Amino acid sequence: MELFGSDRFLFIISRVSPTAPPNDASVLERPNVKHLSATAIGGSVGRRYVIEDIYPSLEGGRFPVKRIAGEPVDVWADIFRDGHDVAAAALCWRGQADPVWHRVPMRHHGNDRWVATMTPPQPGLYEYAIEAWTDDYATWRRDFLLKRAAGQDSSVDALEGAAIISSAKPASSAAEYVLGRERDAFMRSGDPAPLLSDQVADAMADCEPGRDLTRSAPLSLVADRPLARAGAWYEMVPRSQGTVAGRHGTFDDCIARLPDIARMGFDVVYLTPIHPIGRTNRKGRNNTPQAAADDPGSLYAIGAAEGGYDAVHPQLGTLADFRRFVAACRHHDMEVALDFAVQCSPDHPWLTQHPEWFRRRPDGSIRYAENPPKKYEDIVNPDLTGAHADSLWLALRDIVMFWIAQGVRIFRVDNPHTKPLPFWEWLIREVKAQEPEVIFLSEAFTRPKLMKALAKLGFTQSYTYFTWRTRKDELQAYVGELSRYPERDYYRPNFFVNTPDILPFHLQSGEPWAFKSRLALAATLSASYGIYNGFELIEHVPIPGREEYLDSEKYEIKIRDWNKPGHIKDYIREINRIRHANPALLQTSDVRFVPIDHPDVIGFVKESPDRKNAVAVAIALSREPRQFWFHFGDLEVGPEGSRARVAAIENLSTGERHGVEWGGVRLRIDPARDPALMFRCLVAQ
Amino acid sequence: MELFGSDRFLFIISRVSPTAPPNDASVLERPNVKHLSATAIGGSVGRRYVIEDIYPSLEGGRFPVKRIAGEPVDVWADIFRDGHDVAAAALCWRGQADPVWHRVPMRHHGNDRWVATMTPPQPGLYEYAIEAWTDDYATWRRDFLLKRAAGQDSSVDALEGAAIISSAKPASSAAEYVLGRERDAFMRSGDPAPLLSDQVADAMADCEPGRDLTRSAPLSLVADRPLARAGAWYEMVPRSQGTVAGRHGTFDDCIARLPDIARMGFDVVYLTPIHPIGRTNRKGRNNTPQAAADDPGSLYAIGAAEGGYDAVHPQLGTLADFRRFVAACRHHDMEVALDFAVQCSPDHPWLTQHPEWFRRRPDGSIRYAENPPKKYEDIVNPDLTGAHADSLWLALRDIVMFWIAQGVRIFRVDNPHTKPLPFWEWLIREVKAQEPEVIFLSEAFTRPKLMKALAKLGFTQSYTYFTWRTRKDELQAYVGELSRYPERDYYRPNFFVNTPDILPFHLQSGEPWAFKSRLALAATLSASYGIYNGFELIEHVPIPGREEYLDSEKYEIKIRDWNKPGHIKDYIREINRIRHANPALLQTSDVRFVPIDHPDVIGFVKESPDRKNAVAVAIALSREPRQFWFHFGDLEVGPEGSRARVAAIENLSTGERHGVEWGGVRLRIDPARDPALMFRCLVAQ
Repeated sequence: MELFGSDRFLFIISRVSPTAPPNDASVLERPNVKHLSATAIGGSVGRRYVIEDIYPSLEGGRFPVKRIAGEPVDVWADIFRDGHDVAAAALCWRGQADPVWHRVPMRHHGNDRWVATMTPPQPGLYEYAIEAWTDDYATWRRDFLLKRAAGQDSSVDALEGAAIISSAKPASSAAEYVLGRERDAFMRSGDPAPLLSDQVADAMADCEPGRDLTRSAPLSLVADRPLARAGAWYEMVPRSQGTVAGRHGTFDDCIARLPDIARMGFDVVYLTPIHPIGRTNRKGRNNTPQAAADDPGSLYAIGAAEGGYDAVHPQLGTLADFRRFVAACRHHDMEVALDFAVQCSPDHPWLTQHPEWFRRRPDGSIRYAENPPKKYEDIVNPDLTGAHADSLWLALRDIVMFWIAQGVRIFRVDNPHTKPLPFWEWLIREVKAQEPEVIFLSEAFTRPKLMKALAKLGFTQSYTYFTWRTRKDELQAYVGELSRYPERDYYRPNFFVNTPDILPFHLQSGEPWAFKSRLALAATLSASYGIYNGFELIEHVPIPGREEYLDSEKYEIKIRDWNKPGHIKDYIREINRIRHANPALLQTSDVRFVPIDHPDVIGFVKESPDRKNAVAVAIALSREPRQFWFHFGDLEVGPEGSRARVAAIENLSTGERHGVEWGGVRLRIDPARDPALMFRCLVAQ
Repeated sequence: MELFGSDRFLFIISRVSPTAPPNDASVLERPNVKHLSATAIGGSVGRRYVIEDIYPSLEGGRFPVKRIAGEPVDVWADIFRDGHDVAAAALCWRGQADPVWHRVPMRHHGNDRWVATMTPPQPGLYEYAIEAWTDDYATWRRDFLLKRAAGQDSSVDALEGAAIISSAKPASSAAEYVLGRERDAFMRSGDPAPLLSDQVADAMADCEPGRDLTRSAPLSLVADRPLARAGAWYEMVPRSQGTVAGRHGTFDDCIARLPDIARMGFDVVYLTPIHPIGRTNRKGRNNTPQAAADDPGSLYAIGAAEGGYDAVHPQLGTLADFRRFVAACRHHDMEVALDFAVQCSPDHPWLTQHPEWFRRRPDGSIRYAENPPKKYEDIVNPDLTGAHADSLWLALRDIVMFWIAQGVRIFRVDNPHTKPLPFWEWLIREVKAQEPEVIFLSEAFTRPKLMKALAKLGFTQSYTYFTWRTRKDELQAYVGELSRYPERDYYRPNFFVNTPDILPFHLQSGEPWAFKSRLALAATLSASYGIYNGFELIEHVPIPGREEYLDSEKYEIKIRDWNKPGHIKDYIREINRIRHANPALLQTSDVRFVPIDHPDVIGFVKESPDRKNAVAVAIALSREPRQFWFHFGDLEVGPEGSRARVAAIENLSTGERHGVEWGGVRLRIDPARDPALMFRCLVAQ
């Protein structure tokens, strides 16, 4: 029996393994960062140390966790071995194509938990692992000082110290020099003082890892650019951007729309499919089985005589027109997102060029898409697991690369949950290995675990159930689920208020306060959010009894007055302005809901990753004006080391200030004017 | 976009993958359980299916979870793939030395979670894994029926069904016959009815796994005998069991003590080390550095001229005497536990036989054990990681096997946390591969993660912090930690009220209520618990200011009057009687604390694994008599399907009944008489 631990023990560990300063982007240049050869990780090492509960990690390294390039990543682990010897540990990391490992010393945080910080410099896939070993010198030094203090000093102990120094492998010539000099000083004099000096301790810390070296399994991390985490999306149907009734819109019409969209503050312009549309079994208006002669067909029946996935619909323009559109978006500080829908019209060129990619039925007929008893006769699915899947996978990758060559960096993937998960994992890795800046958004509205599986395997962002979540408890529970561990490490939500497929019941009354409330909820609860065109015009006429648009432009061309009275474009602009000015709103994982004394007002506080920006938000979930109590309680904001309770809040639109007294503030909301109140949080100076 | 799921879909999955009946011990004989060849697991399979969040599992299979042989184990997993095809899954399992895998169909529980049950028949190490595949027949049958109901029936669909049946690989000749017959009937008539019959569905369920076969990584589980989970331990120092002052006790003295120990209801008699004790640097009484001529030395300075680990102290008797002691314990329905302390006196024969197992200092002197500034000159530690560690590890394993050959099945391991963790993992696996019934108890009082690591790597049971936990909140938090996931799956606590090393402060006043309260807490909160001899006599004299016994028998021989007035042997007997009669108390993971309106009374309800036995316990944590309210609230007990609120409780000692009204019951406790109340829980008929 033996009781454990002493403060002294922990103190010495901390000293030997110097603290990796948080937020240190210059880590690569620090002198105590060492480089391992490319083959060092995974070599023959022991397992004397337990290295476990590593954070962040996703299913033991099976999938990469998601982070943003240029932002520091704290890596934590439980690290310990038997006995009382002093441990040392390092975080080793490198980029996917980087031959050298960077090594950052870890520091002991307490209770056998260690931490170090790495900063992935640019978008890409990274590996990291943890090394632990026994610091024989630190152990000897601790014990020597304890014995000497107890009057047990012995010359044999000093000889042991000299032997440890002799067997160390200095990582620098400076360390080698110091160690040789001080060891010789001891050997000449017999006085152990040189062996105990801080100079020697520093030089010993600058040696290769020592005895009992143990390494964790390698883990992986994908670093994305900031737009992967936060952005406001505007979904538009290009053929409906024209100005003459009945005439197919063009890329030039789309370009003409950009100033209006940019003025609303959007970051991404997402286009529904732009490809030629099949004629065989073409759907008519409102998804009727028979198309009239002038019906344009479903946007998702991709491919015709004019071309397939790598072609643009002739009535939209040419590929050169499309590239002009991409450039015009860039001019307005926006990016283009394309729809990637792996399904073909029966007229897609692949059916004749590659019949082996499509399944036939026993009677030789083609197998149309179906979800019995529903049938999609204008669509056939290529067989992603058939005998010729290899060449099909490569062809689909090449389609993505083709559009990347046209300047596209964002793909919204249609229905990924109906294609094999290993295909997506392969495709996304393939593409991002060459183009790490690419963003893939998973449009899967399906069972929760399948949606999460798509996010884990590599989708950069994901659609969500937000579109149907309306009550305070529902919203809090759902945002809680997305912002908890482990979901926060791999699931980046993109909250769409509507889509061409979904006109939710709660918008069908067409009340502006409801549209504004949904917009504010999406734009503040989630770092990424989107609207589908027409939302800003309060479009709200459904197929009766269903959550779908009547006369959906999926099957017809629409011409709109984009300045129709009653539009909420200015409101959208103001929300996006506040988002851009407040990094607290440009992340989804740090959100704290606060008590509000009314069930139809939701309130929360968000902070930026650097904690320099804190925003409080209150949003009405019903139409009546009301007063309510926004309760901060003990909630603290501000950077580490100076966190404090909220003392006052300042309205981000009006500049009005409210002092926080008795732990909260009484506020008034009038949804008819604005269902959302947003404030900057201020602490006492 | 596509909305998900339908009840029909889930229903069909359930039908195709028949429910594995819970608690079904005859699973090996069921006709729908199939056998895989030994090489089937780990072969070349795809990963179309996601199989994740498998329960139970410990660190992805790195360590085995712990269960009891003969008890059913429910295995859960999330299982799904893309799309809408019908999934099927099986749990595959086998014993470590078993060449065949058993396969049990899994059933869909909901939300993509599946479950099946296996029952490891005897103690040993088991492997298990999960297989999932696509059930093409069930998919076809579902879709065919949906289409027919929608009037879309087609002969091509029927042909596809026949093709699926043709390509199935029947696992039995019965299935083969049925499938052939019904397919032929369809081919003759063109009527699809035979393809849709329940007979065909059953025969298709009796085929080899089909398309998209995916297997999880193999996980492991160790099944122990019931004593691994629950037992009352009596620790005794053999040399102090004599009756003549100053004379060394013998195994015959120990045998003479057994009726008294058995009458108290103990299951295990644990002996401190029984080996010859070194003379070099022998410690005197109270751990003084100089022994007097007649001092017997420390029990843990193992080895002398008379022999080492495989010898018994000559004054205790012979090896034959020890075997008689083992047999006498068995006669009293008790088992022997031996102390296994890997440390040698300087006189241990290994120092001359195997000098290569011991480290020398630069001056050639031997390295004694130390924990600076503390020194243990009567002990040297063999070097378990030195150049000759291999032969040392084998020798230590052979020591364990030697004592197993003498009839010992339980080892209490001294200070395992100061020896390499990989050594214990290897040793325990080696021993249990040959003797699966062996139990290893980890005596590690050290940092929490290191204690847990020892339990994970294989120790059957573990010492705990209970010895120092006294307040209600401390006890609730600590038992909560041990009974939560994942600790409950690997950490089996053994609550010792005292040990030769620890006389906790709360026992030093020598008040009987305190000894009874601690005994009742240990015996009811933990399935395994222990006392060190003298506890039953209220021994309580410490070294002043320390939690250690004065005149510890670690360093001297004690002679006691085992019937000394004031003993609490009858109280211990009653507690152990209630334990043996109530399986709810013989497990640690199912414990629910209940609100009690006094901080010095702790209350909880425990249920047996089969939920047929529920016990409510209230224990006083201070000396004053008091009334209190024991609040059951909504708490339910009883077997699955008939769980109900507690309606009444019956005192397990007196038979007195109390009705539960307003959700609780008012009780009176008088610690001077009995600080613990234990009740059987009754529900309304």
